[in-house]
Amino acid sequence: MDNSALAEGVLSGNRRALARAITLVESTRGEHRTQAGDLLERLAGSGREAIRIGLSGTPGVGKSTFIESFGLMLAEQGLRVAVLAVDPSSARTGGSILGDKTRMEHLSRHPKAFIRPSPSQTHLGGVARRTREAVALCEAAGFDVVLIETVGVGQSETVVAELSDVFLLLLAPAGGDELQGVKRGIMEVADIIIVNKADGDLKATATRTCADYAGALRLLRRRPQDPDGFPKAMTVSALEQSGLDKAWSDISDLVTWRRETSHWQGRRAAQARHWFHEEIRQTLLARLETPSAQKLTSHKLREVETGQTTPTKAAASLVSTLWPE
Amino acid sequence: MDNSALAEGVLSGNRRALARAITLVESTRGEHRTQAGDLLERLAGSGREAIRIGLSGTPGVGKSTFIESFGLMLAEQGLRVAVLAVDPSSARTGGSILGDKTRMEHLSRHPKAFIRPSPSQTHLGGVARRTREAVALCEAAGFDVVLIETVGVGQSETVVAELSDVFLLLLAPAGGDELQGVKRGIMEVADIIIVNKADGDLKATATRTCADYAGALRLLRRRPQDPDGFPKAMTVSALEQSGLDKAWSDISDLVTWRRETSHWQGRRAAQARHWFHEEIRQTLLARLETPSAQKLTSHKLREVETGQTTPTKAAASLVSTLWPE
Repeated sequence: MDNSALAEGVLSGNRRALARAITLVESTRGEHRTQAGDLLERLAGSGREAIRIGLSGTPGVGKSTFIESFGLMLAEQGLRVAVLAVDPSSARTGGSILGDKTRMEHLSRHPKAFIRPSPSQTHLGGVARRTREAVALCEAAGFDVVLIETVGVGQSETVVAELSDVFLLLLAPAGGDELQGVKRGIMEVADIIIVNKADGDLKATATRTCADYAGALRLLRRRPQDPDGFPKAMTVSALEQSGLDKAWSDISDLVTWRRETSHWQGRRAAQARHWFHEEIRQTLLARLETPSAQKLTSHKLREVETGQTTPTKAAASLVSTLWPE
Repeated sequence: MDNSALAEGVLSGNRRALARAITLVESTRGEHRTQAGDLLERLAGSGREAIRIGLSGTPGVGKSTFIESFGLMLAEQGLRVAVLAVDPSSARTGGSILGDKTRMEHLSRHPKAFIRPSPSQTHLGGVARRTREAVALCEAAGFDVVLIETVGVGQSETVVAELSDVFLLLLAPAGGDELQGVKRGIMEVADIIIVNKADGDLKATATRTCADYAGALRLLRRRPQDPDGFPKAMTVSALEQSGLDKAWSDISDLVTWRRETSHWQGRRAAQARHWFHEEIRQTLLARLETPSAQKLTSHKLREVETGQTTPTKAAASLVSTLWPE
């Protein structure tokens, strides 16, 4: 399929075309990268904008159940929902967090939904670019909501935060007042903390956990991008499908407020800047992988190993030989 | 002082010349970098080689006391001992882990010793280069042992491991069998685990902690660079100055074995490779800071922010304009 047909398919919301386009942006082959770049530029003018919701939560908090229930609720309301995963560890574990679509059995079969597992990737730079481009494709395909899920391994939460308009942190009820394995810095980027499993025996614990986190949020510095009452903590039960409507209405309120106050646009512009600088770094470092660069590198390396020169001198000489200033 | 006089001062073991040379390699000013590069190249042929001992341990394990006692013992044996610190967090805390020389009161005044605090730095790349170059200067100045200390914040332990011939992990006695705040990957690079504070009330706990770690070490994969019995765990009391002679004799045995089996040379060559690749990356990325690159970047940035182009396309265009392939 050529780019023109592919672009048309994506714009018409065709799920097979979208899946094919995402496969294209996931490829690292040179010709595919060129085609992907061209496709993304064709689609850049679509003017369509989804609500990008980042969702982080360690294994065991019920992330799949939450996405299944929350996504179905939105789909039943007529909204088109895409789910993407960022999982830099998938290369190691050999699987992907969304690989088993049966974990979201109903959502994956819903005509308004599109679920895409995380591809096997070793390199976080590659994961970030792939996810950013997949999000752009979902927006061009007319999805209303794009859920970007991560297990929060390494830097993946930062990647998701830099890709989303609203960031949700999903937690499980926990006894005591300990903050359960939440990495430093994540609290600061969360817009809504959602304590899941507020059902059955865990209901009271969930309420207590929620209160603990609400207290912790109040200790954080006030952020300009928040209306009164945000960031907030709430309880839901994905299993019993309770509290999900409240979560969605809070998200919608936050989105409306940020759009009206230009914080939405400001955040997207800041994210564009971030990704631009990141892409420059990646592009520049990719230059070191070319055959001529590799050849000179191994030549210089022998001089370094044998102590004929210092790493610093050798590196300076290599860079200025390859790319004179 | 010109480079010729400075080099002569360093080679003669003059501590003021050494301090001045380290100040030079710590500078980020262009002319100083050039002078530092020239100085290091002059000194590269000295043929002198110290035993580089990396030392990591979280605050509270008695690192200063250990260095003071261990360093004094070596100095009393007639060995010249230099102590350097790697602390990428010092810029944040406003201080440096060795800033207060009074923490090593006797060692700092010993004629055979040289102590250099960590400078304020924000950038780990800069810290790594500075420390590597400071180590090279200490070797050229004829020191027999260079102790490189780190609190193990972020990547600093990796930096120290890549700079040292022998890596020590210092721990405090801890109840139970929990492995106290030891970051993943550190056990794997440690040559000797030293449980400090094996004195007074803590003596029994120290012995138990040592046994726990000895057990943990036995679970690790055998490394080719280890003779029988290594990596090992031992107890010391820096306060009572007991066990330090055993630590030094173990280090000496390990060094002798590695020298005889070429693992020493192999490790140094691997480290040179590592730093060479790291320097290439840093040198390349530094190109983005030049005025012409900055100008083009801010021009392209406006196109990205306004959505006229994608970050990927803009980055590719910027890099190929600045440095045609």
